Formats: sequence, structure tokens, C-alpha cells
Amino acid sequence: MKVVLINHTPKPLKTVYTAARTCYSPDSPSNIFTDEIAFEKMTRLLDKVIDAGHHSVLEHISFTFAIEGISRTCSHQLVRHRIASFSQQSQRYVESGPEGTVRPGTIDYKDNAREIFDDIIRKSGEVYSELTEMDIPAEDARFVLPNACTTNIVMTMNFRELMTTCGIRLCTRAQWEIRELFHRIVSEMKKVDEMSGLAKYLVPKCDILGYCPEMHTCGRRPTKNEIFSAYERRNDE
Amino acid sequence: MKVVLINHTPKPLKTVYTAARTCYSPDSPSNIFTDEIAFEKMTRLLDKVIDAGHHSVLEHISFTFAIEGISRTCSHQLVRHRIASFSQQSQRYVESGPEGTVRPGTIDYKDNAREIFDDIIRKSGEVYSELTEMDIPAEDARFVLPNACTTNIVMTMNFRELMTTCGIRLCTRAQWEIRELFHRIVSEMKKVDEMSGLAKYLVPKCDILGYCPEMHTCGRRPTKNEIFSAYERRNDE
Amino acid sequence: MKVVLINHTPKPLKTVYTAARTCYSPDSPSNIFTDEIAFEKMTRLLDKVIDAGHHSVLEHISFTFAIEGISRTCSHQLVRHRIASFSQQSQRYVESGPEGTVRPGTIDYKDNAREIFDDIIRKSGEVYSELTEMDIPAEDARFVLPNACTTNIVMTMNFRELMTTCGIRLCTRAQWEIRELFHRIVSEMKKVDEMSGLAKYLVPKCDILGYCPEMHTCGRRPTKNEIFSAYERRNDE
Amino acid sequence: MKVVLINHTPKPLKTVYTAARTCYSPDSPSNIFTDEIAFEKMTRLLDKVIDAGHHSVLEHISFTFAIEGISRTCSHQLVRHRIASFSQQSQRYVESGPEGTVRPGTIDYKDNAREIFDDIIRKSGEVYSELTEMDIPAEDARFVLPNACTTNIVMTMNFRELMTTCGIRLCTRAQWEIRELFHRIVSEMKKVDEMSGLAKYLVPKCDILGYCPEMHTCGRRPTKNEIFSAYERRNDE
Repeated sequence: MKVVLINHTPKPLKTVYTAARTCYSPDSPSNIFTDEIAFEKMTRLLDKVIDAGHHSVLEHISFTFAIEGISRTCSHQLVRHRIASFSQQSQRYVESGPEGTVRPGTIDYKDNAREIFDDIIRKSGEVYSELTEMDIPAEDARFVLPNACTTNIVMTMNFRELMTTCGIRLCTRAQWEIRELFHRIVSEMKKVDEMSGLAKYLVPKCDILGYCPEMHTCGRRPTKNEIFSAYERRNDE
Repeated sequence: MKVVLINHTPKPLKTVYTAARTCYSPDSPSNIFTDEIAFEKMTRLLDKVIDAGHHSVLEHISFTFAIEGISRTCSHQLVRHRIASFSQQSQRYVESGPEGTVRPGTIDYKDNAREIFDDIIRKSGEVYSELTEMDIPAEDARFVLPNACTTNIVMTMNFRELMTTCGIRLCTRAQWEIRELFHRIVSEMKKVDEMSGLAKYLVPKCDILGYCPEMHTCGRRPTKNEIFSAYERRNDE
Repeated sequence: MKVVLINHTPKPLKTVYTAARTCYSPDSPSNIFTDEIAFEKMTRLLDKVIDAGHHSVLEHISFTFAIEGISRTCSHQLVRHRIASFSQQSQRYVESGPEGTVRPGTIDYKDNAREIFDDIIRKSGEVYSELTEMDIPAEDARFVLPNACTTNIVMTMNFRELMTTCGIRLCTRAQWEIRELFHRIVSEMKKVDEMSGLAKYLVPKCDILGYCPEMHTCGRRPTKNEIFSAYERRNDE
Repeated sequence: MKVVLINHTPKPLKTVYTAARTCYSPDSPSNIFTDEIAFEKMTRLLDKVIDAGHHSVLEHISFTFAIEGISRTCSHQLVRHRIASFSQQSQRYVESGPEGTVRPGTIDYKDNAREIFDDIIRKSGEVYSELTEMDIPAEDARFVLPNACTTNIVMTMNFRELMTTCGIRLCTRAQWEIRELFHRIVSEMKKVDEMSGLAKYLVPKCDILGYCPEMHTCGRRPTKNEIFSAYERRNDE
């Protein structure tokens, strides 16, 4: 898997600041945007709007990622996020090569699981080639290809949706491959300096909420129940 | 593949009529909705708003389909439509059985394609079972499952998006499985009597546009170029 | 202001139940939907998916409201909710009559505020009539009409978005007119019996979160800070 | 009215090209994006995807405009576009000043329309001031403010939606103020050189379709009916 932030709205912090200020100011947005504003002043406002849940101003900045070598299992989950734009390599038009598959870590060290896994993956690839050589169209031959096969996607998301999506996909209970994908997305975001004020908000949802809302908690944060019963007992004393 | 319209907004035509009338009338929508209106009057207004491209009133009515036994290839395409709601059977939580796979028609009658197809599908299923019996989690074992495996989805779409989606997926150039899926969606819509005024708009996009916009036409309709050069030559005469 | 729930997806609870079960069941959605399921079993599953934040299944059911006699100030706020469908009475095409205006409660009992308010509203209406009689188009004459003028809207929202929107608009800090609008929406929802399991989730966002996230709290719920410092002190003891 | 393109995705054409190529290429998007590609090659691909209606790749690039001094009538229409992000100056929090109002052109030269218009606008502003001085909250005093009052908005739209929106709002039949707004948006787009390949697609919808779909045509393009009857007669000859 490889994730590269290939493009993004320039001056993201300034853009969010301008949008937020426009709501409460008699000053015009074109003036606000061209003003010199201290970094601290901008991040302070950012913290305030995020804390208060006024997240619509975060939509004005977008981030475009090249996502390469993820399994079709992962891409099927990824494209379920609807407030995003995806351009995905087509299995109808691009013939599959032998190299691109993903093997889950649990399979690596369990008895002969790895052998039988690699074997069936290889055989599926061979049958795919046989079928395309018989002039079966690639769009039909691919029915034999396993979920392990990889794909490439260009994904663009605005920052509001990136926060929401990281909240879900960085959760310990998320499936491991898509979780790794979002860890890499966060790493890419951290590389871009001016964004340091933003990347800190790309965390599991329990970090934003303060508690874990899942049915089966991983224990990273207290549950909603633990939090509120502590508060109530405190008040009873 | 099985498609069943399990639920939909009642009185769909009346609802669209009420929304459209509200825009241009001093009368209140609750009155308009309870008035007795002739079917012909309602379909006439429907035809007018659709012709003029004022499609937002079509969003007030939604349709829920049980979609069963489509391949994961088909479901991956289907969930790319973002103005819709999907609840899909999870390969993480539901273990795959041996019965559910789709075999493309092109494979049926080509040399021994069918044999080698069935053989690899069967083997993949066996490896999947072996892996889950070794206590590899279902979410990882499924990496060996082929695209041919089936899934179930509950899909809800409003009528505006249903028109757009049928426009794309009923096109001769759409992939055969998703095209069949949308043919079955249209059949379900036609079964519901009061909707007869609506279902006629669920057609390939060339029928709405009047010409074919695709790079490689199937010949069902003249191309944009043919249409406009005829118009220009006519005017030159 | 008048709000009427004129239409909605039938069997809303059964529909949500079917969508949620489809994700985790080998059974087909068309079977699940036609099965006889106890009301308690369905509300129990509903409670679980809502608690866990798995809200996408709530999108399969939609509700259509006739909203009448709200000010243009209120409608301008309302249509900012983007995951909804609106058909609004047009000031370009429907001429404004003298009756329809909204007077805020704060103006009623303050010195002569009410008199000067009613006076300018009446005068604005007179100038509007003068202008249209001079053949100024209604779409231009309306520039003199005040925000107090009323409008009608047909609004359709799915239940997920209705929860989100009620969370924001029932908050004590929301503007009074749109807050009243959402109180009436909730009243309408409560009238429909089978929905009793649903309407209890249409509450201010602090009731869902457990704490108040606003910068300036109304005191209805403890703040996030109060909740978490109680938890931490409890653990320190 | 003032419109300034304050920010946008850098390298917009290269970004669209990368997204489109990713769908049909075995090459990775991060490679495609860093390759040197001739401008002509990129615009040729752009023309092809737009002609064929494969517009999703246009979503990867976004444009942020400072929109200043439009009437509340115009802003109410503008925010109806749902695939866009808006941050609007609030009449709840920002007190209205005397300067900001819009007067329609039709009122300028008609008898004494201009005088009575200016008079009621001035009076409304005076009443607004009187009310706020009586300590009526700004959010209630604004009920007397006319539609003519101006507002500022920061708007971000992706290129696909910009095409759709220009298609509707540049139409001769659109209301004059929002039409002027979109003419200014197009002017801003044209100023940015690299975008020259893009701005040419920001045109009334009849230019994209080839014919006018409106019920009452302005005559700029032939109607659908004229086009197709010419084609049919041609074929009959």
C-alpha cells in the first residue's frame, strides 16, 4: 500500500479562518483573506469552531490522495464514504497482472495458511489469464479474481469529511487494512507544515467525543456509561 | 439475482404534484396534498417539470429495493452512486456459503471455460473454509473469495437519482450485470400501478437527451453530431 | 406557522430493522421484511444501532412535511441543510399578499416597538403593491419586502438527517423561530403511532452526546469539561 | 456586487487528467501526477470526458469565491445549490449598516419608482436602528430589513458542480442578479491562465445540450423539438 497526498487547497488554515470570520464580521471575505493574520490567532479560532461543532467551515479545503495497491476489499469499503470524490482503476478496462495482491497478516504465521493462500491466489491469476486468452472479455474473466487483488484510487475529500472518516476508520475496531490506509493518510497530512494545526484533529472518534460509543470497546477510552456514572456519583456525594 | 421493491413513499405522484404546485401557488401544501386531483392533471404537470429539467421535485419520493444475489463486482459499482442509501451484507461478519456465485454468460459456451471457471470458484470456496477452520478470521479469509461471490443489499433512492442512475446503467454500454439489475428495478417499478406515470422516465440517458453522448455509440439513437449537422444542413437549404 | 407531516415511508421501523439485519445476516432482505417481527425486538435493535453511531440504516426512511407561514429569515436558515429536499413557494412567481408576516415575540411588549414594527411592515407591503401596479416585475418589487414575510415549503428528510438537524435546531441557543419549527416537526412525528420508537431520538444534540458542546452553555446539561474532570477526579481518589 | 476567486486547487488540469487516466491505466496516480504532460494532451482528454458525460473526474478540483454585496434574495437562491460549501455573514450576529442594499435596474427608470423604493429602504433601516436601540436583539430587529439588504458569502464548489450551476444560472431565464453573479464567477475563472481549458465549459446549459430545454425559450438556441423534427424530416427525404 502506498498513499501520497498529491494535491490540496493552498493556505488551508487561512481559508478556514476566512470562512469562519465572514460569518461574524462586517468585513469582506476578500479583505480577510488578504490580511496578514498570526498563525496562533488562526489556530485559536480553528480550535474554537471545532470544539463547538461548527464544522461546516472545514469544507472549504480539500485534499487529494493517490492511493495505490489496496485490496478490492478495502476499496469497496472506502468508496462507501459518499461525501468524497473517487476515480478508481477499472477492472473492466485494465487487465490484472500477477504482482498485485494483498495477504492479511493473520495468514502469515498460522500453520500452512500462507502456502494455501499463495497457492489459490496464484491459481486464480492463472485461470484469469487462461480466460482472457480464450477471448473472454476482461470484464467477465475478472469474476475469478480474488478480493486480495489490488487497485489504485484517486480520492479527494474536504477536511470536515476527513475528520469524520478518520473518526470511524482509525477506531481500533475498524478493519485492519482500511485502518492502515487512514494512518497513512494522517502521516501524509502531517508532512505538510502549515497544516499542523489541522492534522491533530484526524483521530479516532473517541478522542473527539471523549468516550467510546462502540458496543464492544477496545478500552482505549472509558465508555459513555463509565463517564456519566462517575459524574452522577460525584454529584451525589 | 432477485430484485424486490419492498417499500416506497405512498402516493408518489400526488407528492410530486404537491411539491411542484407549492412553488407557483399561493395555496398551502397541506391543502394541495389533501385536494382531489385528476390523475391526468398530475401526470401532465409531471411531464412538464421533467421536460423542463426542473427535477428537484422528484426527490420527495423514495423507493427501497431488496437486491439479492448480485456479484461483489456489481455491488462495488452500485455503491458508487452517492445520492442513495445502502445497507450491504458484510463479508466481515457473514460467512460465505458455497452456493452463492455468479457466472458471466460469455463463459458458458466457450470451449472449456465453464469447467475451469467452476473449478477455480469451487477451490476458492474450499480454501476459504480451510482458512476459517484454522481460525483465520472471516474478514481475512475472504481475501481468497472471488469477485463472483454474491451479496445482498438494501438500497433506497429518490426518483430523481433513480432517473439519473437508470440513464447511465440501462445504456447498452453499461456492464451486463448492473444493466440487468436496473432492468429488474424498472420491472418492479412498473408493477406498482399508480406509478405508471413515473416508470416511463426510467430509460437510458439517450432517450431523455434525444441523442447518444457516448464516445462509442451502440446505434440505438443518432449521435449528437448527426442530429446537429442535420439541423444545420436543413437551415442552409 | 403550521407544520403537517403529509407523507412518510410506511412501516418505518420494519424498514430500518430490515436494513440493519441485512448487514449481519445470511438471510435475504426480502424475507426479513416480510417476516413477522415483534415491536420490542425491532426497537431493541434500533436502540443498539443508534447508540453505537451506526446511523446509515436510518436513511432508508423519509418524512415529508408541509411547512407553512414561516418567515423568509427562517426559510433561509432551513434550506442550508443540504441532505434534504425542498420545494419552496417562489417570490418571483407568487405575488405577496398583505396578511403573511411574522412578528417576533420580543417586539410585542417593548414600549412602542410593536407599533413601529407593524407600521413599517404595512408600508413595505404598500410600496410593493405600488411597484407591481407600475408594472415593475414581482421578482424586482419583492426587494422591498421585509424578512418578516412568510413562505411555504415542502421538505423531505430522511431520519438520519432529521436526527442531526433536530440536534442542532432544538438546542436552546438556536434562533427561536427555527426552534419552534423543529418542535412542531417533533410533535407531528409523535402523532404517528408506529414511530414512537423513533421520535424519542429527535432531541437537542446534548441529549445524544450526554454533554453540552456549545461555547456558551444554557445549563441544560453539564459541559464536556465538567463531565471529564469529574471522571478524572473520581479516578484520582 | 463583487466576486473574487480567492483560492483554488493548484494544477487543476493536471489533477483532472490524473484522475481520468487512473481509471484506464496500469500506471499509478502518483506517477501520472508527477509526469510531464503536454497541455494539449491534457485538454484533449478533458474535452473527451466532458463530451462523453463522464464528469466525476471534475470533482477533484475546487474553487473558493468571496461573494460580496449580493442581496438576501440572491443569497437565498444561491444556497439552494447543495453540492457546495457556504459560509455566510449572519444577520443574527452582524448588525446591518445603512449602506448595503441592492436596487433592481427596472426600478431605476420607471416614473417615481426609484424614489419610493429608496424611501422605504431608508425607512426600514431607520426602524431597524430604532428597534436595536430599544434593545430588541439584532436577530429580531432584522425582521423589518428588506430583501434588498446585502450579505457576504464564502462559497467553495468543485468544477463538476460549477458546470451544472453555471448551466442553470447563466440561462437567459435565470433571475438577473444571480445571473450577473455567475457571469462574474466565469470572469474570475478566465483570469487564471492554466484554467483556460476549463472555463470554456462554464456556459448556459443549452450550449452543453445543443438545444433549449426550457418551457419558454429565449431563442438563443433551437428547441429540442426543432432539432429533432429537422433530423426526422431530413431522414424522410
